[in-house]
This record gives sequence, C-alpha cells and structure tokens, in this order.
Amino acid sequence: MVETKAAVSQGRLSVNIERLRKRLLALAQIGADLSGQGINRPSFSPADMEARRWLLREMEALGLQPRMDAVGNAIGRWNVGQGPAVLLGSHLDSVPHGGIYDGTLGVIAALECVETLMEDGIEPVAPIEVIGTSEEEGRFGGMLGAQAMAGVVPEAWFCSTEDDRGVKLVDAMRQAGLEPDAYRTARRDPSDVKAFLELHIEQGPVLERSGRAVGIVEGISGVFNWAVVMTGTANHAGTTPMDLRQDAFRGLADFAAEVPEILATHGTQASRLTVGKVELQPNFPHTVPGRAEFSIVGRDMDETVMSALADACRAALTVAAERNGLGLEIGEASWLAPTPCHPDIVAAFARQAAVLGLDAPVMPSGAGHDTQLMAQLTKAGMIFVASRGGISHAPDEHSDWPDIEVGANLLLNTLLDVASQGGDGLRS
Amino acid sequence: MVETKAAVSQGRLSVNIERLRKRLLALAQIGADLSGQGINRPSFSPADMEARRWLLREMEALGLQPRMDAVGNAIGRWNVGQGPAVLLGSHLDSVPHGGIYDGTLGVIAALECVETLMEDGIEPVAPIEVIGTSEEEGRFGGMLGAQAMAGVVPEAWFCSTEDDRGVKLVDAMRQAGLEPDAYRTARRDPSDVKAFLELHIEQGPVLERSGRAVGIVEGISGVFNWAVVMTGTANHAGTTPMDLRQDAFRGLADFAAEVPEILATHGTQASRLTVGKVELQPNFPHTVPGRAEFSIVGRDMDETVMSALADACRAALTVAAERNGLGLEIGEASWLAPTPCHPDIVAAFARQAAVLGLDAPVMPSGAGHDTQLMAQLTKAGMIFVASRGGISHAPDEHSDWPDIEVGANLLLNTLLDVASQGGDGLRS
Repeated sequence: MVETKAAVSQGRLSVNIERLRKRLLALAQIGADLSGQGINRPSFSPADMEARRWLLREMEALGLQPRMDAVGNAIGRWNVGQGPAVLLGSHLDSVPHGGIYDGTLGVIAALECVETLMEDGIEPVAPIEVIGTSEEEGRFGGMLGAQAMAGVVPEAWFCSTEDDRGVKLVDAMRQAGLEPDAYRTARRDPSDVKAFLELHIEQGPVLERSGRAVGIVEGISGVFNWAVVMTGTANHAGTTPMDLRQDAFRGLADFAAEVPEILATHGTQASRLTVGKVELQPNFPHTVPGRAEFSIVGRDMDETVMSALADACRAALTVAAERNGLGLEIGEASWLAPTPCHPDIVAAFARQAAVLGLDAPVMPSGAGHDTQLMAQLTKAGMIFVASRGGISHAPDEHSDWPDIEVGANLLLNTLLDVASQGGDGLRS
Repeated sequence: MVETKAAVSQGRLSVNIERLRKRLLALAQIGADLSGQGINRPSFSPADMEARRWLLREMEALGLQPRMDAVGNAIGRWNVGQGPAVLLGSHLDSVPHGGIYDGTLGVIAALECVETLMEDGIEPVAPIEVIGTSEEEGRFGGMLGAQAMAGVVPEAWFCSTEDDRGVKLVDAMRQAGLEPDAYRTARRDPSDVKAFLELHIEQGPVLERSGRAVGIVEGISGVFNWAVVMTGTANHAGTTPMDLRQDAFRGLADFAAEVPEILATHGTQASRLTVGKVELQPNFPHTVPGRAEFSIVGRDMDETVMSALADACRAALTVAAERNGLGLEIGEASWLAPTPCHPDIVAAFARQAAVLGLDAPVMPSGAGHDTQLMAQLTKAGMIFVASRGGISHAPDEHSDWPDIEVGANLLLNTLLDVASQGGDGLRS
C-alpha cells in the first residue's frame, strides 16, 4: 500500500494510450455503419450484445471475473483487497449513427486503468469493477442499466415502455437473450459498493473553447421539458389587418423575445433555455398562423433556479398569449431535479488533478449520464474529456488522443485515491 | 335614356335577392363535396367546366349571346347600345374545399344585374358582358382568364407551368376540351372595352368588424414574398452554453421581435408583414436549432412603402443573423407592385353608394383578384361584400344575404352609371 500511495501522490502512474486507442478502435468495429455513417448499436440490438460479449472476453483476458447481469450490464470484477468495490465505467450502447467515443471511451478507459495497475504491479486495497452499462441512450426512455443497479426501475414503466417503433423493452431484452423478469437481480447492495467513477466525452464546446483537456463534473443539470400550444385564428395574411389578427407565431415570437431577459434575471452560468422544436399550422406563407406548438427545455444545476426560470417562462407565455388574443396550453412533459456529483468524488478528482498539474475546471453536465442514476446507489462522480466542436451523437464526434490520455490518467489516479481511502468519508 | 338616368339618380333600381340566392345555390351544387366539405372546382376540372356550361345556359336563357373563349372564360354579351362594352363578373373556379361565395357571387350578381335591367325594361347605352373568368385561384400560378383577356400571358410560363401535382396547364386545358394553342384569341381589344366591374366577398374581417355591408376597393396591395434561411449549428441543448450557441431559431426570434417596430416606423394602415411558415432543423426539443427557414410576406398599397418595409426587414434580418453568428440567405421569391383601381370607377362606386345612402369605406384589397389584371386592359374597379369572421377558402365562408343585396344593388346602379357615361373620362 505504501508504494501505491507514493505512486499516486507523485502522479507517476500513466495509462498506455496506444493500447487504449487500439481497444477503442476495435470496439468501434462492432456496429460500424457500412457506409461510414458512424456507429449503430441501439440497446439490445445484435451489435450492442456483440459489443458486450466482446467486452466480457477482454475482461476475462485481463483476469477479471466477467459476468452479464439480468439487464445486460457487462461487469468485470478485479477481486482484490477487501470491502466494498469501486465501480468504474460508462455505457456501450449508441444512438443511431453515433460516434465512437460516447460512452465507450469511459468503458475502455476503465479497462485501461485496470490493465495499467496490473502491469505496474499495483494492487488496490478495494475490489475494482469495470462496467459497460446497458441502455443509457434512452431507446426505451430511461437509463436501464444504471437504474437497475441502483434499484430504481419503476416496474410499471419497465413492463410497458416501448421504443419509437413500438417495440417493447421486455421483448427487445428477450430477443437479446436476457431475462427481463429477473431485472431486480441486477440491483447492487449499497454496502457492497464504495463509489462509481465515470469518464465521458463532454459532448459540448466548453472545454475546447477554454483550451482545457478535461473537466470535473459538479453534477448533472436538472431539466424541464414543456410542450406549449398557442391557439389563434388562421386567416388570409393579405386581407387581415395586423390589429385584427390572432397570430399564433406572434405569441411565440413575443415569448422568445423575453428569453434573454429571463435568463439574465433568474439564471446562472449553468442555465439553458431552448426552443428547439416549432410546428406552425397551417404553415403557409400567405396565412396567419392559427396554431403554434413549440418546445421549451430549461436546465440548471439548482432546482430553485429551475423553478424561477419555469415561473418566468410561464408568466412570459401568459403575457404573450394575452397580448395576441391566443389560447395557451402548457404541457409540462417532465421535470427532473438536478443531481449533484458526490462532493468527496469531486474532491478526489480535484486532488488528483492538482497532483497531475492539470487545469481541470469544475463544471455542470447539461446532458444526462449513468452517474446521475449511480448517485442514488453510491458516491458517484465523473470527468469530461474535451469534444472537438462540441459535436456528439454524430459520426464526426471526436476527441484528441492527448486529451483522452490526460483524462484516463486522471481517472486512473483518482481510482487509486478513492480505492485507497477507508471509511465512509472516502478521505484519508 | 332619360328614364335610366332618373332611376339611377333616385337609387330606385334593386336586384331580386331571392332569385340571386337561388341561382348562387344552384351553382353551388356543381362540384359540391359529397361529405359537405365545401366546393371543389379547381380550374379546368370536370366540375369547373360543368359550372361554365351551366353559366352559358343561364346566359342564353336570359337572351345574352353566350360563348366560351380559348382559355375557358364564359362570356354572355347583351348586345345593346353602342361603343365599347362594360364587362362585369368574377371567377367560377374554386380552391379545394372552398366556399360558395368566393368568385361565384360576383358572377351571379352580374347576371342578376342584367336580369333586373331587362325586367325593368332598362336598356343601357353600352353593351354589357357578364363574365365568369377561368383559373383565378392560381392552380397553375397565375390568373389565366383575366391575363388572357388583358393580353398579358407570358408565353414561356404558359407553356411550362404545372400545378403542384405536376400536371401541365396546357394538358389540363386540352383535357377540358379547350385549345391552349389559341390562347391569344382570348385577348380583348382595349378599344372594345369601356370598363370592368367586379363584386367579390372581402375575405377579411374589416367590414364585419366596422359594421358595414360593402366597401369600395381602392386597389390591390402589392406583395413581396421572401424565403429566408438562417444557418447556425445544431448542438446539444444541455451541453452548449447560451453564449456559445449559433441558434437559428434565436435569429428568427430576434427578427420577429422587430416586426412591430418596422411596421410602426415604415408602414401604413394597409401594411401587412407576416411570418406564416417556419421550418426548423433538426426540430428536436433537446437540440439547438441549426437551421431556420421561414417566410416573410409583406404588403402595402404604395410601392415606396413596400420598399421601405423590405429594406427594414433586410436590415433587421442582417442584425439578427450577425448577433447570433448565423449565415443568412434571403430568397426574394416574388415582388408584385400594387395595382390601384381606376379612380373613375372608384368615383362611380362612391357616387352610387352616396345615392343609395350607403356607408361604404374605400379600402385596399390584401388578396389578389381578376381586377388587378383587367386593370391592364381597361378602367377596372371592384367592391367588397362583408365576410363573416373574415373566413374564406373554407367551407364555412359566409356572407349575409342583406349585405349581398346591398352589394348587388351598388353594382347594378354603378353599372348603369358607368355604361351611361360617354367618352374616356367616364364622367358625365
């Protein structure tokens, strides 16, 4: 243990980036689109299951104990040390035509951390488990792999949820050779788990723009998703004077004009307010829009701020509808509270970043990740690696190898830090 | 002629509204949608041609000389008096699922004017022609019937234009038994025509809102139609901070916020600025819009005002694009100058409205009409009858019979006024 601590404190430990790269590219062959349009590994598809079997073989070759749980999580346990295990990993499934880094980089980096430790003859004081989680991308609307480990799968949802083609989750699982009825067996006993660490690409532009390789995630933003309908009257755009219109698009425009002010008054640096989807009816140049349906998605790291943003949006929508004589319907489709990463994990990442001499900002995650579910099971935290152009969920998703190396080394050293610390507080 | 003038000056002449009503409803049977969804008489369809043949039979029964010209205009001439003829009428074709008043009311009112005069033994001093024009609703993109009479059919357009299903105009005409090659024969000699008078439903809410039955049209608004594309970057709405976005919808919203100010600064009571069509890409709630395509349609009675509105829109679009880091493409799809009605015809309508004790406001037409083409042939003008709720191009299009009676009587008395006046000036 003395060597381990010394190695960590001096930041000596370093992954083999070439080995990591080769492994990531090997995994990227599975489900690769034949015409070069990225990766197709939707959850429980043959390609997704093939990737899981590939990972289990890699784990076995490293001497880990491989297993697949009832919901498809591929788990390799390094059964060393004692007490609860440190889990690390990310997801293996992809969106249609996704990139090769999203999720998989965290799995392969985790495997590389283990191989580096083995190679260097360093045995952690706690068991380590590398995990390739299942169904993180939400084909069925949740993050099933992490939900099942955390024991927070809503049963009614599990039994009835379908993908957008009407395929039921339970049928897709059976098709993949899994046993949906046994999903509760995937639940981990909290007393067997010490922490969960995840490395993931940022999928946003912040790190690249600020010239940093990695960031430490303070938490996953809360998010509300509204479907708003404003109803006016579709009229001839030539014969209807401006002051006799009930123009549904004007209602949307009047609301949208208030968004910068709403953010300035009620928001934070982590706040986001987005109108991403707009459908007008009849959507014809010479007709005053009689109906506007649009989305409002709001985010922040602080639920109080989220509420203030939501209230301000509701007020602005009401004013805009009244001013234009429109009916207003606000469909509050979802409200997810923010999930902070555990402060001990954030501190461990920060400590090791300092040891490694890294300028790693603490930042929110605007996207959802396995970490937000694992936080319900254990002390969870994650780091980001810079994404080129902030692009993700697309074939040209990219992260630079030097940045990936920095991220994997931070994960490696933090893994040892977290594994080495005793007790609940994780601090030495 | 002495009796005629006396009758006009005393406002004694009056149409038979019940006969007018019956004739309009008889015509409404032709092309009536079987499930009650309005009228289907697209140009040159079997129903459209049947309506034209029906009209020719009605004309013949009244003793008019009926004929159909090469482009389908149904014309009935009352060959009385001498010199150039006064033409009156409107169109017979309908939009899909249109109402029973649009166009047809002007044709049936014209026929009723002639029958009233005949019944009252009043013979005008000039020949009268009742016309049911063809292809006014723009199935093929123009107003062919009136264009052909005015001799302003662009040959290349005529030979190549298609409807939105790819049917060529010339093929549709041949199918209807017409001879497209002979379209030039439909041209009227300007020296044979004294004036064109049209009665039409308003298709807007102005008259109903102000409690008036009829209005006198000062002219048809000019109109410009732009297709604007703003191009930004589609990014994850959670991971992309507000200040690192190139949000194409924000570009549209910033422009739309300026529209009221643009109208207040550069517009008139007749001005219209409408964003009727919006298409975002990828149009997904959780993605910052990377592309916004939208229409801007502007109208005014004064081309100088139109230019000022267009310039202000262009400036506001440029500012909005720059502020959001967007590419901007303004596709100026069309620019049609305003067409004033002839002041002598406007004066004649106003004179007879005064005789009849009507409060008939002089107003612009925001929609296009045969009159705007006929104005290139002769002194043309039109009147509006109030539309319930401003609704048109829909099955629930409606005008009240008392209002129609007022409009038809104004048309009747103005017809005699115009027919009676000699010389170019139309004034006595």
